[in-house]
Amino acid sequence: MRTGITHLHIPGPTNVPEVVRQAMNVPMQDMRAPDFGDLTLGLFEDLKPVFGTRDATVMMFPGSGTAAWEAAIANTLSPGDKVLMARHGLFSERWVEMAQRMGLNVEVIDVAWGAGAPVSEIARRLGADRFGEIRAVFVVHNETSTGVVSDIAGVRRALDTAFHDALLFVDGVSSIGSMEFRMDEWAVDLAITGSQKGLMLPPGLGILAASPKALEASKSATSRRVYFDFADMMAMNADGQFPYTPPTPLLHGLRRALDRIAQEGLPNVIARHRRLAEGVRRGVAAMGLQIVAQHPSLCSDTVTAIRTPEGVDGREVLRLAYERYNASFGAAAGPLVGKAFRIGHLGDLNEGMCLSALALAELSLAAAGARVAFGAGVGAAQEWYAGAAPREAALRFAAE
Amino acid sequence: MRTGITHLHIPGPTNVPEVVRQAMNVPMQDMRAPDFGDLTLGLFEDLKPVFGTRDATVMMFPGSGTAAWEAAIANTLSPGDKVLMARHGLFSERWVEMAQRMGLNVEVIDVAWGAGAPVSEIARRLGADRFGEIRAVFVVHNETSTGVVSDIAGVRRALDTAFHDALLFVDGVSSIGSMEFRMDEWAVDLAITGSQKGLMLPPGLGILAASPKALEASKSATSRRVYFDFADMMAMNADGQFPYTPPTPLLHGLRRALDRIAQEGLPNVIARHRRLAEGVRRGVAAMGLQIVAQHPSLCSDTVTAIRTPEGVDGREVLRLAYERYNASFGAAAGPLVGKAFRIGHLGDLNEGMCLSALALAELSLAAAGARVAFGAGVGAAQEWYAGAAPREAALRFAAE
Amino acid sequence: MRTGITHLHIPGPTNVPEVVRQAMNVPMQDMRAPDFGDLTLGLFEDLKPVFGTRDATVMMFPGSGTAAWEAAIANTLSPGDKVLMARHGLFSERWVEMAQRMGLNVEVIDVAWGAGAPVSEIARRLGADRFGEIRAVFVVHNETSTGVVSDIAGVRRALDTAFHDALLFVDGVSSIGSMEFRMDEWAVDLAITGSQKGLMLPPGLGILAASPKALEASKSATSRRVYFDFADMMAMNADGQFPYTPPTPLLHGLRRALDRIAQEGLPNVIARHRRLAEGVRRGVAAMGLQIVAQHPSLCSDTVTAIRTPEGVDGREVLRLAYERYNASFGAAAGPLVGKAFRIGHLGDLNEGMCLSALALAELSLAAAGARVAFGAGVGAAQEWYAGAAPREAALRFAAE
Amino acid sequence: MRTGITHLHIPGPTNVPEVVRQAMNVPMQDMRAPDFGDLTLGLFEDLKPVFGTRDATVMMFPGSGTAAWEAAIANTLSPGDKVLMARHGLFSERWVEMAQRMGLNVEVIDVAWGAGAPVSEIARRLGADRFGEIRAVFVVHNETSTGVVSDIAGVRRALDTAFHDALLFVDGVSSIGSMEFRMDEWAVDLAITGSQKGLMLPPGLGILAASPKALEASKSATSRRVYFDFADMMAMNADGQFPYTPPTPLLHGLRRALDRIAQEGLPNVIARHRRLAEGVRRGVAAMGLQIVAQHPSLCSDTVTAIRTPEGVDGREVLRLAYERYNASFGAAAGPLVGKAFRIGHLGDLNEGMCLSALALAELSLAAAGARVAFGAGVGAAQEWYAGAAPREAALRFAAE
Repeated sequence: MRTGITHLHIPGPTNVPEVVRQAMNVPMQDMRAPDFGDLTLGLFEDLKPVFGTRDATVMMFPGSGTAAWEAAIANTLSPGDKVLMARHGLFSERWVEMAQRMGLNVEVIDVAWGAGAPVSEIARRLGADRFGEIRAVFVVHNETSTGVVSDIAGVRRALDTAFHDALLFVDGVSSIGSMEFRMDEWAVDLAITGSQKGLMLPPGLGILAASPKALEASKSATSRRVYFDFADMMAMNADGQFPYTPPTPLLHGLRRALDRIAQEGLPNVIARHRRLAEGVRRGVAAMGLQIVAQHPSLCSDTVTAIRTPEGVDGREVLRLAYERYNASFGAAAGPLVGKAFRIGHLGDLNEGMCLSALALAELSLAAAGARVAFGAGVGAAQEWYAGAAPREAALRFAAE
Repeated sequence: MRTGITHLHIPGPTNVPEVVRQAMNVPMQDMRAPDFGDLTLGLFEDLKPVFGTRDATVMMFPGSGTAAWEAAIANTLSPGDKVLMARHGLFSERWVEMAQRMGLNVEVIDVAWGAGAPVSEIARRLGADRFGEIRAVFVVHNETSTGVVSDIAGVRRALDTAFHDALLFVDGVSSIGSMEFRMDEWAVDLAITGSQKGLMLPPGLGILAASPKALEASKSATSRRVYFDFADMMAMNADGQFPYTPPTPLLHGLRRALDRIAQEGLPNVIARHRRLAEGVRRGVAAMGLQIVAQHPSLCSDTVTAIRTPEGVDGREVLRLAYERYNASFGAAAGPLVGKAFRIGHLGDLNEGMCLSALALAELSLAAAGARVAFGAGVGAAQEWYAGAAPREAALRFAAE
Repeated sequence: MRTGITHLHIPGPTNVPEVVRQAMNVPMQDMRAPDFGDLTLGLFEDLKPVFGTRDATVMMFPGSGTAAWEAAIANTLSPGDKVLMARHGLFSERWVEMAQRMGLNVEVIDVAWGAGAPVSEIARRLGADRFGEIRAVFVVHNETSTGVVSDIAGVRRALDTAFHDALLFVDGVSSIGSMEFRMDEWAVDLAITGSQKGLMLPPGLGILAASPKALEASKSATSRRVYFDFADMMAMNADGQFPYTPPTPLLHGLRRALDRIAQEGLPNVIARHRRLAEGVRRGVAAMGLQIVAQHPSLCSDTVTAIRTPEGVDGREVLRLAYERYNASFGAAAGPLVGKAFRIGHLGDLNEGMCLSALALAELSLAAAGARVAFGAGVGAAQEWYAGAAPREAALRFAAE
Repeated sequence: MRTGITHLHIPGPTNVPEVVRQAMNVPMQDMRAPDFGDLTLGLFEDLKPVFGTRDATVMMFPGSGTAAWEAAIANTLSPGDKVLMARHGLFSERWVEMAQRMGLNVEVIDVAWGAGAPVSEIARRLGADRFGEIRAVFVVHNETSTGVVSDIAGVRRALDTAFHDALLFVDGVSSIGSMEFRMDEWAVDLAITGSQKGLMLPPGLGILAASPKALEASKSATSRRVYFDFADMMAMNADGQFPYTPPTPLLHGLRRALDRIAQEGLPNVIARHRRLAEGVRRGVAAMGLQIVAQHPSLCSDTVTAIRTPEGVDGREVLRLAYERYNASFGAAAGPLVGKAFRIGHLGDLNEGMCLSALALAELSLAAAGARVAFGAGVGAAQEWYAGAAPREAALRFAAE
């Protein structure tokens, strides 16, 4: 029988902070009550800084991040529209597939799993698009399947350099709220996330931000949409309402999660993710393992994909972690199946959680047949955390 | 300041039973864990009797009931398809609008708000459809906006009499789990509900059941769908998985809610709704008020729409109920705005809750200017409940 | 099977407000952590106004109200001490018994159940106590078993008139936090309550306030005490600590409960209890039933004890309320067994809850064989509530 | 600001399992309802095997473990009675003090903190007690302050060898439910625990088991008691009731906690504590630190007290653990203040939790100035856990 806490080290759903969990423990309420907007209106506003935007409009669709992907496409593009997409991991692959099924004419740039979105190739294609046929460029900011971050600022520069006015779609599902995301600065048109990652909530909300340019595009886009329609949503959101019944417990949780992010300070949240991730990476290196990201500069601060040693099946690592140690790591996908596993390190997290992730990864690897020098990984992470303890920690902390 | 419980008498979201609320108070978990199916696989099976089906396939889409509506259409019909729909309330109106926006050729039969779906007119149209152009008939089983139930068995007979093979779509959002719903017997092809009504959960799941005939139709339907795609969903559901992250707390809650329905016994659940609803109706009659349903045989057992007296604005009734008495009643829509309000009486409910609903409705009506003989409504309901106390209540009850 | 909410109309434990319930849903923590006092120190301070004191010292003992009774005696009196006590209900009876078992020399004044503490007789006895042998006078402020409130100010006057310096012990278990309690003005020396009544928490804390005079008395009192020792408790409380492990979830709940009382405003809390209680009393009168309190001026605002009609067993009323209607009323005790039942109306309460209490009492009485004119009781209460709607309710309420 | 889970590694309150936490999230209920015994009666029965008894009577007092200590003494001994007690840690010291304050004539055997109860000296004293003046022997089974376990079977043999009929009192607060405790076999007369240790609940219940001999003694014991009276408690418990309001959420939690212990199997619970504790001990040894227990055979399986290196203040270790790493370790007491700290490892626990405890202990020691070879402690524990993975883990685990 399993005892103790489940060590949840997947890249989402992430651990829900206790205060958020408290906030969601609510009875049902009338979403048409006159004061419902007191809860909801602030959410739209307070999500904006998390997206790094002042100008965009934030919408929340009851559903998953996939729902927000579909909403973004359905509202701003039309069947037959040409779009440029990079494919270098499971989520970019799925997004390509979605775009194709929605009738878009997808020009795919394939690069290796482990690489980031190829900025120079994107630039080349945009430059070559003499007649402006490309209506949108799609980039996954943080490929959750490979632990690779892409250079959105670079993609923006590519667009600008080419004087190209394609819309810029960015999947920030596993980065927004945890890593730097500058929607306005990067002139992102459609930025997408979900409730269950950096926002530290259970799954159930697909969240997106649409730039004024995206909203303008939605007026002429002919893709059919009803459930995901921006206009319907925005008309109701204006009063804090939704066109259909929203998942109210999640909205209460989101209120508390946003308060918590504000309390810690978004720059501190981002710095904490960086600090904790670096410890995990050093631990993995000290274990003598390779990571999937092709270059250190590509490493995600929210998830690390780790190659298992020759002869060790990553699926066994996961199975044994779960069965013996009550720990959940992320499975590998696509070409990495059996050859890798992932450690998620985002959301409501601290040093001790990263250290037990490493310690249990070592135990699970050993159980799956890897030669492991116990303590090496944890020790390297400890060295880093010991030195990198944030200065503010020396100050008297505030009780929540 | 508001004190005490909020008296929630809207037709959804409904009151969540304590045991269900407990069950949803969970930490996050990995929806790719090997034992995730232990939770989910039983849900699909145990939802079947609630729909009254053995043959259909049940699916749950993260989203609202509206999402399930859209999924039903997108998977089984193609743009340009002709469908026959009755419009006699807010939800049938919205479904018509959705069908139109999804490119269907909608033949609408308008009847008064307060009437049920016009079976004989439907029969006539089906009979007149010589070339079998009508691909589907849509009926709202329980019009939540008017408190009117429609005769699905009658619509089935109309189809059969006309030897018509159109698909039969039924919105059972506010009936399934609370009123009789015989999907197989009525040969319904697409039956739709949501988590937040008779299933006694928070909002967040659009649930539908698709007949083998509907699944067959999905193979050739050309409406574009990705998030709502049956095939993707069914492929993953086979192992208890979902194509994207599902709202796990709701799945835990659903497990407990279904156990609870099984424990009470679905026929007892239905009988209880009938008994409690009859008390509300008698109370309303004793207040001297009219209901919106045109005939007693049309009365819904889950919601009653009540006309306010001449000169009394239904919106004022709601506002005063909420501000003074911490009570939420349902607003009126469409032609009923200002002229009616609704009492929801479904889900986890008992006599005392119906009686306070009536008592607070009386107080709110009086506050809004109606002449009310205090106690009349409650007294009539009490008379009924005193006589109709279920025989089993005399037995020793089982502690939950 | 029971469905819907349990209608809890006992005089404690009372309904826990949702926000308090949320606050108690916490993981465990170290009660020796340096910031534990951030939680606890404010509790002692903020309980003071609820007791109506500035001068007294508040203590919380893990245990029930009975524990606080014992702590009060054990710390301030010595075996053999003479004390004067009125006995007119179950709780005064039990307190007499406790005092006797703790070795006190108890002079009991018996009056009828339904009467209040006999101020003039107390005055007489104090006046007759030439040698000042009476060390303490004990009064139950609100006899929960009979729904009778006693005149503490009158007892204080009796003491003052007699120039008697006996300690004044007051049981305010079912009054403090719901009814006026003026510890300093009445010069009460030991005031006792519990967590599960007006403080709207689960049971688990016996709470008392001790005047400077009581603390002085504790220095020479020779009753043995360890767990209940004031000195140990006060020494640790000074830093927000406890001499043994305190029930931390309750402390978190208390924080929220006190915030809520402050938000409503204690005078408003008291006025609300009065207004709601008056509705219950009018309802009971309209049912044609007698109450146990001998005079309207004695009626408690937190609980009403009601005599059942001739031939109707109060125990049957309770049993049927529980089995058929999922409602809990208070049982009768002592000479009232079988002849009465009680409705608790304290804590987190509103009009709708009082109305369903009356409606279900009527149904249960009828089920037990009483002749009931259904609606009479509820109607009378509605009349009162309709007229007595607090002026502030007309204002825009604040969302919690 | 603190983020992530709080790493709670104190010897109580311990981490509450999620299922227990769910079970306590209940609304209030009537503890006089006819079916209340359905909840409570089983608790008394199912606690018996946890105490290792069939013959004893289990009682639960709302309060802390200290309350149960007092109840044990007050019911079975009289002022002036001579008792024999060993003093070798904070809790034995406090129990001595309590006994003295309750008027007992305490013969204390002082041994070093770090030693166990001195069985041979106890034997000697019992042998020397020619006139049978010693009425009771008190032993702390598991000294929480030093991490030392005492030999209760040995004390029993000493009593038997001396043909001495003194009562045997045993404090099992931090052992019962986690370590072997054989009340009947050891002929313990009064065994004491609390809710917040091996029973995995929040604080709030002092729990004891009294042998038939103890109950017999309670008939003649003259210590004054009311709140703690066995007879009152047993009379009410017979029907599943309590003489005063019990903390119902804890009772619901206890039900689930006992189910969980039964599900894991008490022998497995005990083996798990042993396995996890051994890992912690090996880790501590690998860090080069000494433990307080004087001999390996004395080591507790629920808490380890660790001496800090020369020049490193244990209080600093705790402070830094809490402020920098959101971790709570146990403080040292008495002669160990500043020279030690404690790791609690009992209750709902697994390998990952012990490993993060060690990792954070290393970081905190380093922060406090100790020279630490990072990874050494964790590595040694991992080695042990890798080899000691329980056989049953290879089997398919059951989902809770």
